[in-house]
Amino acid sequence: MDLSGIYPPVTTPFTATAEVDYGKLEENLHKLGTLPFRGFVVQGSNGEFPFLTSSERLEVVSRARQALPKDKLLLAGSGCESTQATVEMTVSMAQVGADAAMVVTPCYYRGRMSSAALIHHYTKVADLSPVPVVLYSVPANTGLDLPVDAVVTLSQHPNIVGIKDSGGDVTRIGLIVHKTRSQDFQVLAGSAGFLLASYAIGAVGGVCALANVLGSQVCQLERLCLTGQWEDAQKLQHRLIEPNTAVTQRFGIPGLKKTMDWFGYYGGPCRSPLQELSPAQEEALRLDFASNGWL
Amino acid sequence: MDLSGIYPPVTTPFTATAEVDYGKLEENLHKLGTLPFRGFVVQGSNGEFPFLTSSERLEVVSRARQALPKDKLLLAGSGCESTQATVEMTVSMAQVGADAAMVVTPCYYRGRMSSAALIHHYTKVADLSPVPVVLYSVPANTGLDLPVDAVVTLSQHPNIVGIKDSGGDVTRIGLIVHKTRSQDFQVLAGSAGFLLASYAIGAVGGVCALANVLGSQVCQLERLCLTGQWEDAQKLQHRLIEPNTAVTQRFGIPGLKKTMDWFGYYGGPCRSPLQELSPAQEEALRLDFASNGWL
Amino acid sequence: MDLSGIYPPVTTPFTATAEVDYGKLEENLHKLGTLPFRGFVVQGSNGEFPFLTSSERLEVVSRARQALPKDKLLLAGSGCESTQATVEMTVSMAQVGADAAMVVTPCYYRGRMSSAALIHHYTKVADLSPVPVVLYSVPANTGLDLPVDAVVTLSQHPNIVGIKDSGGDVTRIGLIVHKTRSQDFQVLAGSAGFLLASYAIGAVGGVCALANVLGSQVCQLERLCLTGQWEDAQKLQHRLIEPNTAVTQRFGIPGLKKTMDWFGYYGGPCRSPLQELSPAQEEALRLDFASNGWL
Amino acid sequence: MDLSGIYPPVTTPFTATAEVDYGKLEENLHKLGTLPFRGFVVQGSNGEFPFLTSSERLEVVSRARQALPKDKLLLAGSGCESTQATVEMTVSMAQVGADAAMVVTPCYYRGRMSSAALIHHYTKVADLSPVPVVLYSVPANTGLDLPVDAVVTLSQHPNIVGIKDSGGDVTRIGLIVHKTRSQDFQVLAGSAGFLLASYAIGAVGGVCALANVLGSQVCQLERLCLTGQWEDAQKLQHRLIEPNTAVTQRFGIPGLKKTMDWFGYYGGPCRSPLQELSPAQEEALRLDFASNGWL
Repeated sequence: MDLSGIYPPVTTPFTATAEVDYGKLEENLHKLGTLPFRGFVVQGSNGEFPFLTSSERLEVVSRARQALPKDKLLLAGSGCESTQATVEMTVSMAQVGADAAMVVTPCYYRGRMSSAALIHHYTKVADLSPVPVVLYSVPANTGLDLPVDAVVTLSQHPNIVGIKDSGGDVTRIGLIVHKTRSQDFQVLAGSAGFLLASYAIGAVGGVCALANVLGSQVCQLERLCLTGQWEDAQKLQHRLIEPNTAVTQRFGIPGLKKTMDWFGYYGGPCRSPLQELSPAQEEALRLDFASNGWL
Repeated sequence: MDLSGIYPPVTTPFTATAEVDYGKLEENLHKLGTLPFRGFVVQGSNGEFPFLTSSERLEVVSRARQALPKDKLLLAGSGCESTQATVEMTVSMAQVGADAAMVVTPCYYRGRMSSAALIHHYTKVADLSPVPVVLYSVPANTGLDLPVDAVVTLSQHPNIVGIKDSGGDVTRIGLIVHKTRSQDFQVLAGSAGFLLASYAIGAVGGVCALANVLGSQVCQLERLCLTGQWEDAQKLQHRLIEPNTAVTQRFGIPGLKKTMDWFGYYGGPCRSPLQELSPAQEEALRLDFASNGWL
Repeated sequence: MDLSGIYPPVTTPFTATAEVDYGKLEENLHKLGTLPFRGFVVQGSNGEFPFLTSSERLEVVSRARQALPKDKLLLAGSGCESTQATVEMTVSMAQVGADAAMVVTPCYYRGRMSSAALIHHYTKVADLSPVPVVLYSVPANTGLDLPVDAVVTLSQHPNIVGIKDSGGDVTRIGLIVHKTRSQDFQVLAGSAGFLLASYAIGAVGGVCALANVLGSQVCQLERLCLTGQWEDAQKLQHRLIEPNTAVTQRFGIPGLKKTMDWFGYYGGPCRSPLQELSPAQEEALRLDFASNGWL
Repeated sequence: MDLSGIYPPVTTPFTATAEVDYGKLEENLHKLGTLPFRGFVVQGSNGEFPFLTSSERLEVVSRARQALPKDKLLLAGSGCESTQATVEMTVSMAQVGADAAMVVTPCYYRGRMSSAALIHHYTKVADLSPVPVVLYSVPANTGLDLPVDAVVTLSQHPNIVGIKDSGGDVTRIGLIVHKTRSQDFQVLAGSAGFLLASYAIGAVGGVCALANVLGSQVCQLERLCLTGQWEDAQKLQHRLIEPNTAVTQRFGIPGLKKTMDWFGYYGGPCRSPLQELSPAQEEALRLDFASNGWL
């Protein structure tokens, strides 16, 4: 499975009463589907997956698959805390249309999540998954990095095809690319802030929250990198850093959804306990886009 | 509701095939029920709650309530990531017998869990819970501390009766006791390692993993503190620190369960991805008990 | 050497042009000298020692010794980054009157400060010091905790008499007391916020920034603890937490010095890069004292 | 002042009795001087500057300047904890031959090192320095990042010409390049591990510990980046990551000096409390070079 390319980690739209709004999900996907993305991630961290029931999680995957063109890959976040639950969710998501499973590190017992424990977890999931597995390391949410030695070991599993790394440490990304070079293993940058650097060091694409709102720009950055136009790439990358930080670390999913509203998509509310932005935060968010020429 | 006293946060026993072993749960509770505990916590962090399905979570509460004497309080960990799910779990747990709900801070989106967000979350849960709510802050697992100002605000809610604080910062515990002194708000130490110090500073009890194996000793420490026998208390406390660290930070639930096997309870396996101890770890665990005279 | 008791870690007064104001130092010490302290610390973290030249460091020790009654211990912070410089400073400080040397952990190369390295460092210093050595662990400034195993090993050195532990982790303090019980080794709490708890768990005293301004109250807290009046101790401790946090973590030395000005001592400016408090910070500082009845 | 290029942050050689070995320093510089470096850094973190006396610090600068060809820039680390001491050291180092001063963030009082405090500190130093100032942010040693907003403000100072950023966060590096684009401000990567990525995002060079031992390779990586040979650059960068980590994070200066011995330079001992590598560590160090084809 060739993972190369850009993926928006799509948000889960909710109604004013906090029901999943599948219609809005489809609308968003139809709009996003016209852009040159390699595919889509549902239920990455931006999908508020910890707030969804199991049946909602499956229904989102199912609807997304139906709403998307056949040639777009659908990566579904199937991670749960227990190995068994993750296996079951992975199998079920594959059944309803996921092309690959993106599996976040379990994290509640992070003090016990040694390389050995994580290798055991992912091996079990990959053994039993009907679709390829993509590792997913996102320390800002989980408080742990999937250790490089575990990644290298897991890269040898025939059903593990890559990793989404959201930590932003390009030295680590480079090392992973280097130490898995003899495997068919692909690295995706987990954020638009270090996308150019990741391409430069050997990543094959990115899963970028920012692509939900500046999708064509993120795809343009990809193209500039792939065609060796590094100076133009650098200029574009520079202008994407602040907007990217704004919709991730700084203002999180409420910031991303607010921006989606501005850019013609449906953002809408988050589920509680995520809170709406204050007017001052909204203004700061707007400035992060405006000062870089995007609003 | 008077929370004063000691509570073991009971483990969830599993069979060799990782099914919940309700029979073993009842056996453990029957044995533990003879000790002078104020009550029991089910589905604290030691209960592997993130690995249980919703129906398992409820069944554990129901079985525990039936297995326990009427005068023992049953605190049930009902926390989920979303406010709505937490409300539903809390209500359901109350229906099957929980005397109070112990609600851990949501944590996956810790970067957005401001005081305002957490106050909103807990207020909603407390508004809708048929039983009293106990706040639960456990930074080793969640990566966040429930801020003191949020605790103080929440202490004014008529249905929030206390907090279990597992962070081990007694300055913070003292400050919480001080700033909630005009409320009917009770602080429970979240570990046996700082139990004496917590009593000294105004806590009314403790939820102590170690009480699953050294239950009478932890209760004796309580009694020594309450009766002002601080010198003896200090000596006993000293001998409990290493065993306590061993079954929490150092070796986690696998260590606690292994020790339960040694002390006549059913420990058994954990659900994956938690791994069994290696022989060397088991030896180190044993030494932490033996060198303090407990084995 | 009996370390039992309370010590203010005195500040280093500066003139408006940032010269050390030895006269003001002496005035402060004369005033503080009337309180029932066991002694005084010069060039702890509150003494701005990293901003002093070697000759200033020695002159401060010399002046302090002369200004103080004979029966007051003078602990002098002699820590430097290199072992050799620490030895030299320790010897020189002893020559000009220090009764003991309080030696902070070297920290710039914290990634290499293993137990072995720290044991080597302190052993060398203690071997060559003409006066007893007190270990000093202050992770808020150094970014590292002196590991318990290193403390236990070092406690066996005949010229190492104790530790000032400013980390605030009473479980750790209890463990150190426990594991050094067969040695003549004394633990001092490094802050007034956890002084009661430290006494309860076996510490023999405290080095408390707050004692620079609420000296009699900190000594009263000591007395209440030593005479077993734990309820009154608790009430007093509670009222000291916020003021203590204000002059340490929250507003640092600029906050402590400002408060000294309020309480009849000479605070004055800090050396740059430490900055004066803003008016809003000053107001918040005042409130932390006033709301607890101290202003 | 054009900073573009590669700089080894040279080590300070010591004799067996821990005296500075100026002769060996000169020998090392003569050997290194034949490589196409832009210049040299003395008393960066790898120079053990916290272990040197003031006169040693100046003598090292003086000897280095004399040992080096005129066209090689000499950046001297002049940072101290106080602003005043930093100013004095900077002026003195300029007098003995430093072409620019590289000023590390003060860090002992990191809790008070707000942007305002750091801006004040660096402005004062830059105002009074006879030579250009390079900011230096190295969170692994100092526990703090010089905030981006402070960097942007300081970039406007006519005597501040750039920053050495050792944190490894290329998103941050890109943002600094972007937000200082209207200033004559240059960014140097602080380690060889993210050198390619830094060039890709707009840095103009690097200060790389690894250049002390694999100097020609690091310069080759620079050349490949500057001439747009990104594929070859990537391959070379990959092979440098593990050796670089080995001589920095993993084994620190003792590792770097040991490697220098292997590569024909004088490494020698560190000053205490830095310890020699154990045989097992030495073996692991060797493997990090050998497995990448460098030994």
